[in-house]
Amino acid sequence: MNGRGVGNTFNRVLGIDPGSHVTGYGVVEKAHNGLCWVTHGEIRPKKKAPLSECLQFIHEALREVIKETAPDALAIEDIFFGKNIQSLIRQGQVRGGVILAGRLMDVPVYEYSPAEIKKSVVGYGRAEKGQVQTMIKAILKLPDLPPPDAADALAVAVCHIHFGKQDPI
Amino acid sequence: MNGRGVGNTFNRVLGIDPGSHVTGYGVVEKAHNGLCWVTHGEIRPKKKAPLSECLQFIHEALREVIKETAPDALAIEDIFFGKNIQSLIRQGQVRGGVILAGRLMDVPVYEYSPAEIKKSVVGYGRAEKGQVQTMIKAILKLPDLPPPDAADALAVAVCHIHFGKQDPI
Repeated sequence: MNGRGVGNTFNRVLGIDPGSHVTGYGVVEKAHNGLCWVTHGEIRPKKKAPLSECLQFIHEALREVIKETAPDALAIEDIFFGKNIQSLIRQGQVRGGVILAGRLMDVPVYEYSPAEIKKSVVGYGRAEKGQVQTMIKAILKLPDLPPPDAADALAVAVCHIHFGKQDPI
Repeated sequence: MNGRGVGNTFNRVLGIDPGSHVTGYGVVEKAHNGLCWVTHGEIRPKKKAPLSECLQFIHEALREVIKETAPDALAIEDIFFGKNIQSLIRQGQVRGGVILAGRLMDVPVYEYSPAEIKKSVVGYGRAEKGQVQTMIKAILKLPDLPPPDAADALAVAVCHIHFGKQDPI
């Protein structure tokens, strides 16, 4: 998967923050001189769309992003357990479609805990959502604050570049 | 979706019992003279395969079944809430891939509660798994008892033919 850079000198990671209402994504590249922002955005299925339509919309939008940005890896956050059962199941289903998007496009998928992600971006594991946005803007030298879900997605991408787990899920 | 029978005189339903270890499937057709068994089987990803490989294996096997059997509808069971959080998330992810298999092949997906399914097959909502197998064998005039997960899948298909919910998920 790392055939594009000589001796793995760079690495392009697509981070994803999956959600049925908003799925954030962000692509970050590891360059010789540090981290390099590639793109970010949010995928928003129609409000009140049936579940299967949401899953398809997110899945196909991500396949499009993968096609356009050709990442070496896809990184997502572990599910957050504080949620209620219904949204846990819903998020599980969305994650299934997200993981499949990577898998069916031959991009390995890696998973990080919220604490690992915050630690790699803010420096400690219990940061607020706003701090992630501010730090991501600074780390990637963005002109503006990215929207929260895209910032979280960029943070997962940065986390994978830092931690570099070896075993895809 | 029902263009194959004149005046909707028959209906072919693919029932699915999603699980990361075993996903059962079964196809039942509504014929003039009752219910008609078409096929059933079990999809078993390699034990200890990574999650993304499981999801792909199940998703692609189901797309194959859909291609071969051309169902008008796909029916799955609601998630069973008694499970622990980890297996709930895992099952959610598998369901995401299953729902996508239907959606991406233009087959609408319907959902039924375990009680609705048991009621439509055994006559009441609290039947044991073994009773579903026995009743499915009788209803569909099968020579042998189908394996449990395939029997559950056939039961969801029978349930959709009986209840005929109008709104896909």
